[in-house]
Amino acid sequence: MKVIIIGCGAAGATAAQFARKNDRDAEIKIFEKGVYPEYSKCALPFVVSGELSPESIIEFSEDWFRKADIDLHLNTPVSAIDFENKVIETSDGKEEYDSLIIATGASPFSPVKTEGKTYFLRNMDDAIAIKKEAKNADSAIIIGAGLIGLEAAEALVKRGIDVTVVEFLPEILLTMVDDDVAKIVRGKIEEKVKFLLSNRVTEIRDKGNHMEVTASDEHGKKSILQGDFVIIATGNRSNVQLTKRLVGEKGIAVDERCETSIKGVYAAGDCTQYRDILGNIIPVGLGSVAVRQGKVAGANAVGGDEKLMPLVNARTTKIFGIEIAAVGPLKRSIPFKPFMGKFKGKALPEYMGDMGENIFIKVYADSNGKIIGAQAAGHEAAQRINKFALAIHHGLTLEQFLKAETAYAPAVAPVFDASTIACEIAKRKLK
Amino acid sequence: MKVIIIGCGAAGATAAQFARKNDRDAEIKIFEKGVYPEYSKCALPFVVSGELSPESIIEFSEDWFRKADIDLHLNTPVSAIDFENKVIETSDGKEEYDSLIIATGASPFSPVKTEGKTYFLRNMDDAIAIKKEAKNADSAIIIGAGLIGLEAAEALVKRGIDVTVVEFLPEILLTMVDDDVAKIVRGKIEEKVKFLLSNRVTEIRDKGNHMEVTASDEHGKKSILQGDFVIIATGNRSNVQLTKRLVGEKGIAVDERCETSIKGVYAAGDCTQYRDILGNIIPVGLGSVAVRQGKVAGANAVGGDEKLMPLVNARTTKIFGIEIAAVGPLKRSIPFKPFMGKFKGKALPEYMGDMGENIFIKVYADSNGKIIGAQAAGHEAAQRINKFALAIHHGLTLEQFLKAETAYAPAVAPVFDASTIACEIAKRKLK
Repeated sequence: MKVIIIGCGAAGATAAQFARKNDRDAEIKIFEKGVYPEYSKCALPFVVSGELSPESIIEFSEDWFRKADIDLHLNTPVSAIDFENKVIETSDGKEEYDSLIIATGASPFSPVKTEGKTYFLRNMDDAIAIKKEAKNADSAIIIGAGLIGLEAAEALVKRGIDVTVVEFLPEILLTMVDDDVAKIVRGKIEEKVKFLLSNRVTEIRDKGNHMEVTASDEHGKKSILQGDFVIIATGNRSNVQLTKRLVGEKGIAVDERCETSIKGVYAAGDCTQYRDILGNIIPVGLGSVAVRQGKVAGANAVGGDEKLMPLVNARTTKIFGIEIAAVGPLKRSIPFKPFMGKFKGKALPEYMGDMGENIFIKVYADSNGKIIGAQAAGHEAAQRINKFALAIHHGLTLEQFLKAETAYAPAVAPVFDASTIACEIAKRKLK
Repeated sequence: MKVIIIGCGAAGATAAQFARKNDRDAEIKIFEKGVYPEYSKCALPFVVSGELSPESIIEFSEDWFRKADIDLHLNTPVSAIDFENKVIETSDGKEEYDSLIIATGASPFSPVKTEGKTYFLRNMDDAIAIKKEAKNADSAIIIGAGLIGLEAAEALVKRGIDVTVVEFLPEILLTMVDDDVAKIVRGKIEEKVKFLLSNRVTEIRDKGNHMEVTASDEHGKKSILQGDFVIIATGNRSNVQLTKRLVGEKGIAVDERCETSIKGVYAAGDCTQYRDILGNIIPVGLGSVAVRQGKVAGANAVGGDEKLMPLVNARTTKIFGIEIAAVGPLKRSIPFKPFMGKFKGKALPEYMGDMGENIFIKVYADSNGKIIGAQAAGHEAAQRINKFALAIHHGLTLEQFLKAETAYAPAVAPVFDASTIACEIAKRKLK
């Protein structure tokens, strides 16, 4: 059994790991166009801030692959795949395979032509270049107020840089959470970062001693921003140049076994699309999903029969100390009117007063009371969202969620957790 | 409809609240032997430490009851119940009822005869007395290293008092968690509190200018401890003097509707027993359960049909900054050999190094992989345990738990949460 994996990101490396775990004898080769073995892309903002070194975020080292008897070829792009004859072509020649795993990831794109000191924050070299740039900079402009844009903003603020974030949409973080959650977060970070919302960037110019970004609001009113450098964080597109015939609307189409339309050809990670809990086909864009797909694809490529659940997209970040987390579709992506419950208050019993940190949490359910999504900002948001993720994966209702006991102690949590109260409120509307 | 409630603790007050919510016209009377309306018993250690005032921990004030048109009689013990004629007798005379809710709670007991400056920490007056005592004390002896004993210990340490805790069992916290979890906690608090484990207290003596506690280990070796005062925290017994004919082995027997063996007579809180997830009958001893029972009893007393789930006893505390939480039976209470998975490590991805706090978590499953219990100490232990509580209530397996997505971000959580890894380890043993 010979397995070839294209791409050594989170999905590819995990696929290799689990192919090896499930088959001690298989020949496993990875071809990666970049020069680094697998590292955490999500940790790149910490490289920019200087809190982590580039080396420290490598999760699967070259040595790890050697010990696992996995043949890793760095700096070796794959130029063609011949699915009929089960052969790939690399800069080093042709390679046959029995199973193929495509984990080519995604690449950032710019909404406008770029020049001068303009960066993405997608890979290791980007992070190293931005860090270097930031050492002599006083100000920066970030285009895009999504998760990456804001994590980059925080990294730069930690370095003492003045940051302005320009966003086309009317609120920050709108690809992660609904506007009510995002507004709470923005209220708490506005003193640290300047925001220019509802503004589309029309031009990025290198003016010699500084960069100039021109943006325009919906009425055509122009703003001209100046900064020492620019970061573009407006999203990614799946890398599917080699695999056009496998591609659906939002990436390489895979089934629950992470297999493509061609038997023996698997795909995992940001290059793929998969169905969510509502049956919608969505692009894969989370590291946590990429790893779970890698696990499934790797095992199945050597004869296993692992299956992935429909996506709930449990997601989180922490920006300027505020934890934000969400699971399930955004409100605007739900094709019916959901029943919603919100709780905003303290995470400790009322009598604990200011000892309790703030928590905002909301939950969505369908007309049968089945939970379909939840979002939170504040105290231990991600762990609360993980509980909702479990509930959603297994079709639990508001009633089933809120009847479950929660642990109570004055210094830890009230008798009814914020998440339970949100469900109670949603359930009342259901009646 | 006339509802009488005996006892205005968490269960009684909540029952009154939900009787009113479900019936705007019912006549509702509460008889409480103490002089305070409902307050948080769990918050008493914070009254001792001085962080909260006695008034501040009152959750349902007399004014609240008045506004809810609930007739609260403080300082009015009930002396007899005539179930045949549906009449109770109080110090103020007789009262008829249509529905009766018994919420008489539990009372602490001492393993030995007491004298001098010896206190329990069960009610408001206890806390006020201990606080007063502590103002002029340098040292204290606490008997019992359970949750209350340790919370009291921390409260006194916060006041600068030297505390020694004597425990009959060989480890602390053994009614809350298994010994491996308890040992980790003890390792972290031993520099703040002295422990004398495996020692049974045989005598408490008032020596005039100090108190003396004599304890004896399993080999009969005596220890004599001296302190300015003593707190006894060796457990509680349900208050069932008035209700002998309703009592099972561990308290008043109630069904899922919180109804006793007599129709129209309900009971809730620490005076009751109920079944757990394994079908065992256990005493109710958690405020969180008392409130949930109160909700059910109150609604049903006015004609509702609410039901309580079998208990999982989700429980938590935070001692000297360490969060501890558990759900389900202790290992020694499981009548078969469970499959167990443990994880001990950092709560953040490995590359985050010391930015990640410590977490220890373990999970139990039966031979079908169904989760029956979990325990944790460290980072956000309670929220993780709440997720396990949901899983246990709804019969989910290790496989179902670990296949669920969890939210990942370097500053928040790794790709696979500690709880997921513990399930993975337990599942491997199951195979």
